[in-house]
Amino acid sequence: MLLQLSTWQEIETYLERSQGIILPIGSTEQHGPTGLIGTDAICAEAIARGVGEATQTIVAPTINVGMALHHTAFPGTISLRPSTLIQVLKDYLTCLNRSGFNRFFFINGHGGNIATLKAAFAEIYYDLALSLPDAPPIRCRVGNWFMCGSVYKLAKELYGREEGSHATPSEVALTQYLYPDFIKTASLPPKVASGYPIYSATDFRSHYPDGRMGSNPDLATPEQGKQFYERAVKELSSKYLEFLSSD
Amino acid sequence: MLLQLSTWQEIETYLERSQGIILPIGSTEQHGPTGLIGTDAICAEAIARGVGEATQTIVAPTINVGMALHHTAFPGTISLRPSTLIQVLKDYLTCLNRSGFNRFFFINGHGGNIATLKAAFAEIYYDLALSLPDAPPIRCRVGNWFMCGSVYKLAKELYGREEGSHATPSEVALTQYLYPDFIKTASLPPKVASGYPIYSATDFRSHYPDGRMGSNPDLATPEQGKQFYERAVKELSSKYLEFLSSD
Amino acid sequence: MLLQLSTWQEIETYLERSQGIILPIGSTEQHGPTGLIGTDAICAEAIARGVGEATQTIVAPTINVGMALHHTAFPGTISLRPSTLIQVLKDYLTCLNRSGFNRFFFINGHGGNIATLKAAFAEIYYDLALSLPDAPPIRCRVGNWFMCGSVYKLAKELYGREEGSHATPSEVALTQYLYPDFIKTASLPPKVASGYPIYSATDFRSHYPDGRMGSNPDLATPEQGKQFYERAVKELSSKYLEFLSSD
Amino acid sequence: MLLQLSTWQEIETYLERSQGIILPIGSTEQHGPTGLIGTDAICAEAIARGVGEATQTIVAPTINVGMALHHTAFPGTISLRPSTLIQVLKDYLTCLNRSGFNRFFFINGHGGNIATLKAAFAEIYYDLALSLPDAPPIRCRVGNWFMCGSVYKLAKELYGREEGSHATPSEVALTQYLYPDFIKTASLPPKVASGYPIYSATDFRSHYPDGRMGSNPDLATPEQGKQFYERAVKELSSKYLEFLSSD
Amino acid sequence: MLLQLSTWQEIETYLERSQGIILPIGSTEQHGPTGLIGTDAICAEAIARGVGEATQTIVAPTINVGMALHHTAFPGTISLRPSTLIQVLKDYLTCLNRSGFNRFFFINGHGGNIATLKAAFAEIYYDLALSLPDAPPIRCRVGNWFMCGSVYKLAKELYGREEGSHATPSEVALTQYLYPDFIKTASLPPKVASGYPIYSATDFRSHYPDGRMGSNPDLATPEQGKQFYERAVKELSSKYLEFLSSD
Amino acid sequence: MLLQLSTWQEIETYLERSQGIILPIGSTEQHGPTGLIGTDAICAEAIARGVGEATQTIVAPTINVGMALHHTAFPGTISLRPSTLIQVLKDYLTCLNRSGFNRFFFINGHGGNIATLKAAFAEIYYDLALSLPDAPPIRCRVGNWFMCGSVYKLAKELYGREEGSHATPSEVALTQYLYPDFIKTASLPPKVASGYPIYSATDFRSHYPDGRMGSNPDLATPEQGKQFYERAVKELSSKYLEFLSSD
Ligand code: NI
Ligand code: NI
Ligand code: NI
Ligand code: NI
Ligand code: NI
Ligand code: NI
Repeated sequence: MLLQLSTWQEIETYLERSQGIILPIGSTEQHGPTGLIGTDAICAEAIARGVGEATQTIVAPTINVGMALHHTAFPGTISLRPSTLIQVLKDYLTCLNRSGFNRFFFINGHGGNIATLKAAFAEIYYDLALSLPDAPPIRCRVGNWFMCGSVYKLAKELYGREEGSHATPSEVALTQYLYPDFIKTASLPPKVASGYPIYSATDFRSHYPDGRMGSNPDLATPEQGKQFYERAVKELSSKYLEFLSSD
Repeated sequence: MLLQLSTWQEIETYLERSQGIILPIGSTEQHGPTGLIGTDAICAEAIARGVGEATQTIVAPTINVGMALHHTAFPGTISLRPSTLIQVLKDYLTCLNRSGFNRFFFINGHGGNIATLKAAFAEIYYDLALSLPDAPPIRCRVGNWFMCGSVYKLAKELYGREEGSHATPSEVALTQYLYPDFIKTASLPPKVASGYPIYSATDFRSHYPDGRMGSNPDLATPEQGKQFYERAVKELSSKYLEFLSSD
Repeated sequence: MLLQLSTWQEIETYLERSQGIILPIGSTEQHGPTGLIGTDAICAEAIARGVGEATQTIVAPTINVGMALHHTAFPGTISLRPSTLIQVLKDYLTCLNRSGFNRFFFINGHGGNIATLKAAFAEIYYDLALSLPDAPPIRCRVGNWFMCGSVYKLAKELYGREEGSHATPSEVALTQYLYPDFIKTASLPPKVASGYPIYSATDFRSHYPDGRMGSNPDLATPEQGKQFYERAVKELSSKYLEFLSSD
Repeated sequence: MLLQLSTWQEIETYLERSQGIILPIGSTEQHGPTGLIGTDAICAEAIARGVGEATQTIVAPTINVGMALHHTAFPGTISLRPSTLIQVLKDYLTCLNRSGFNRFFFINGHGGNIATLKAAFAEIYYDLALSLPDAPPIRCRVGNWFMCGSVYKLAKELYGREEGSHATPSEVALTQYLYPDFIKTASLPPKVASGYPIYSATDFRSHYPDGRMGSNPDLATPEQGKQFYERAVKELSSKYLEFLSSD
Repeated sequence: MLLQLSTWQEIETYLERSQGIILPIGSTEQHGPTGLIGTDAICAEAIARGVGEATQTIVAPTINVGMALHHTAFPGTISLRPSTLIQVLKDYLTCLNRSGFNRFFFINGHGGNIATLKAAFAEIYYDLALSLPDAPPIRCRVGNWFMCGSVYKLAKELYGREEGSHATPSEVALTQYLYPDFIKTASLPPKVASGYPIYSATDFRSHYPDGRMGSNPDLATPEQGKQFYERAVKELSSKYLEFLSSD
Repeated sequence: MLLQLSTWQEIETYLERSQGIILPIGSTEQHGPTGLIGTDAICAEAIARGVGEATQTIVAPTINVGMALHHTAFPGTISLRPSTLIQVLKDYLTCLNRSGFNRFFFINGHGGNIATLKAAFAEIYYDLALSLPDAPPIRCRVGNWFMCGSVYKLAKELYGREEGSHATPSEVALTQYLYPDFIKTASLPPKVASGYPIYSATDFRSHYPDGRMGSNPDLATPEQGKQFYERAVKELSSKYLEFLSSD
């Protein structure tokens, strides 16, 4: 049930039975020598569509570009500044709220989006309440697929410490499952930096010269990707339904 | 050659031979009782990918949500405010320019985006030149698939005045070709309003109650969609190459 | 009937019979070696006042500085960034709407303003409707004097291809008619560039080194200027009245 | 020497001998039952042109709309919000500075502009220095014609306490001198409020129901207006030259 | 009665008897070789607390950083840009107004804040009235302790022309009274520049190389500081009560 | 070593040996029936000063108002919108960076600030690098005193689950230690809600009617507060030194 493949009259009908919507949000950023630049958007989109089907929920078009300023020293990265992303989210939710939606479940593929999403929600709640004090209040929630308990457990089992924290085998596996024709290979140095905090883009690249943060994506396989997909869909479907039904 | 399905090292290599990039931009807005809400993004994305293949050019992730404030009285429409869209485009191009890209060809599926794109380009040229006075200057161009001469001619031949100006049979045909499983039917009143200028969202809906502007999308077929697709790809590929090579 | 030469009580009285207002908008930008920097504002202002008299309509003070960032590599040009111009227009229309005006007819002297005006209108409709959902909706229209059919026809007759697209003989003629003491002369190279697209200010100046775009303003005479003035006033007066009376 | 009646090449030549420019700024706001809505812009413009002639200085187009939010409960008032006016001034000065101007003398006709002008100058100095650390620094000054010593003295002599502080006989006299065909009459109640501080627009109108603040504009004559004009031009010409020559 | 040392229920009770609040605002900027960087915030805070006690009024947390861009060429200065400060004040007053406060008395320690405060008030009145047209209107006032008649008189008596206009003995004396352990000494050149207008930060430092503007803070004593404190508290208490009771 | 109690020449000297600075940031928000509205700022300020002394580091003035929009349905709360806070932080760090500081350690007293701080850091790194590409890069870190391991452990030992997550006994204890004269009492219902997610301010208040989130601040004592203070100072001092020395 994709918003983009629906008509406005189908949405009108949908809104009679539910005011919930799922919004996939990813990022367009370097993912190491073998990870796809679109990894975070691809994963979020696929899982969001799975959750949409499982829960009979409308899924919005994917927000492909998120907050990835720290990756901008690598070519191909595109990022919004947090101030811009806050405005984008405000525009999205104001429109959708005017349509009748009031439960917004973001399925997120990128850790770097979390802080800005959270900041944006606070600002949107406040600004919408000021301009429309009598409208039914909206609620937003973020579901990070890579932080699902079942996903995290599997990643630890399969990869241990080589999961790392960026360009991870788990996310690479998921893209391999979704895009088997785009599995990339490169000779990855076995030793890879980890543990440096994230500051500016230049600083990031000097500490993480090939873009990986402590990960070994060579471990990834499409079959593992399928497992991650299924676990994430299952767990986030539960979370969405719980979110929708909570008072 | 999709940016999202590339690695950063592939982009680095690409930039050695070309600094051009294609950016599909659409809209998420009502398209009448039988048109998909994602029509403009779907068409722009498909054509952009066709042009990317034909010209061996990198294609960025699609900007799915554009400037459609006048459609927001219909449920399901999502729009950025022009001020927000200008910031979004500035963020995109600043990042990509830092990567090394300097020729930006937008393939656009929505008339409502044109003014804001044009305004944004002027602001981006100016702001980038102020902050980076010595960098090689960037250039932007918009290719509107629906305004291609060959497309326009075909639409007139096939539909005459029933092409209309929103939720047109040509764009509906193109989505039917791309998503044959999502062909919608509805009984469309044969008489449909046309010619009213566009003002506010409420005003729009009162003049165009089912969302169509003078169009009869019932005339659309997937086969016609294929023809539109091929003509648009061919014509925009030429335009892109001319843009790239112009001094 | 100039707003600036009226009292607030006269405006109060006026609003009882009409809620329409004319807003001249121009630009402050180079117009080649013999064109006045204020050409676009001067023309818009004069024509707007003519239309105001012909239709008994209030005319606002001229917006002298518009969107001319692409001319800023020539000394004397002043431009607003599109983001700023959108805010300016929003402030103007919010105030005037609070006063009781709701039909805004911009008489525009500068092609570079059109995109930003259009973007601004969309944003203003939306923002005003959000903050004042119950107020009577506003409507905006742009009348570009240089695109009037009767003006265009005369320019073609008088100048053919030498009309060009910036620092044109038609606009220079109009300023000669209005300011006969400020007719400038310079030896203009007969060959002048034309047809290059507009990108950054630096790019513009390198392609159009004396500021003209394909035009030969030497052809202009004050008598022709009078003709342009009269045609523009007549045609835009009709357009304004039609705008005002449309439902 | 009006910028708008010059060519860019004349400005280029001018900049070789001077980097100073005069910018008239006024307001578009109610001025009581007999004062023109454009009073502040009209006065600033006329005096600025006088100073321009006396000192052989370029005069920019008048900023007709300033900061008059407290007058917006009277129909016909147009105001920028201070945040917008700061951006407008930043855009103006950035362009002009790029042209080569670096001494900006604002001739101001409206007390309500002073605070925002001052705030804007601080922000512009800072932002320009950040983006162009090596450019020669700019300087801004405000010359308020109504606060000139010679003007103030004359107003006190002619009107005493009836000068008041808004819609004053001195400014009305000046507009009568400049626009003798637009002298307005109305029966003004002799008693008029004064001394209330300025808060919101609604508050303002409730305390000053006809728009005057303690003034009796009935005392004004065109002849007095001429005197004000001459004194202001003389005094501000000296101030401008002193500003220009100060190290 | 400090807001920060109260509970929300105490504020709820307070609001039943008064809707007034005192907001100290200072600056964090160089104050010459012997003046504390926090001088303006320290003075404003102490006096505001005195006024709060004298008038039984709630005092908000001090705004420590104000508009001091012209001091930023000296290390240790922190300043907001005026555009930012306007937003900050808007956020403060919107929250407090929602709580029930509607009389805002700023006790200010820094001349550089005045213009931005005034601009902000105008914008806040307007924006709050647009978004909440039916709410009881708010009122703001600035009380500059250093411009109190009784303070000014004492400073003239004690220091004459050596009071100067920045890093003055009066403000230094006040900080000596409040922080006797932080009295600084340095050999101050007896001759100190004065009278240059304020432009950019670089310009400021070149004219006022040690940060003082015409002042001799060596004259300051803690005992004098106590006198300034008492006079300022007394005079501003009266002004606050008058503000609160005015209709 | 408080910035506000230093002179600019002392800061100049300090910068020769260190480029690090500590910035306390809190919030001004309801803390239940017995918690002080300033709790988060008070705690952050005291601990920051302790860390400053322990590590011989300059401490900036406290940012008293943070991101607390979700508490604004309780009187006395003041909050910045995240967009505003990002600008404030950008202004602070731009100034301080110009002074020579480049290591910014925020000691934070409020969970609600974390997301916006993180978003702001990303934006500041990026914007500073764009405008000053050759300057030594800056680094920011947040030290949340309430999330220190040693603090958390003590809170669990002392209060178990009654620590809760807002208006906690640990933060109340700390304010009791710092302000023994302002210990508040109220009869607190033993049962208090917990576990509801945070959405809008209205929603928050309806779920947490007295402002506490699962906490029992009745358990707090000043002696415990002293222990929290000492642990936080010790642990954050280590963290600061480690931050400063990391490459
Ligand atoms: Ni990722
Ligand atoms: Ni379409
Ligand atoms: Ni023109
Ligand atoms: Ni006036
Ligand atoms: Ni001071
Ligand atoms: Ni707290």
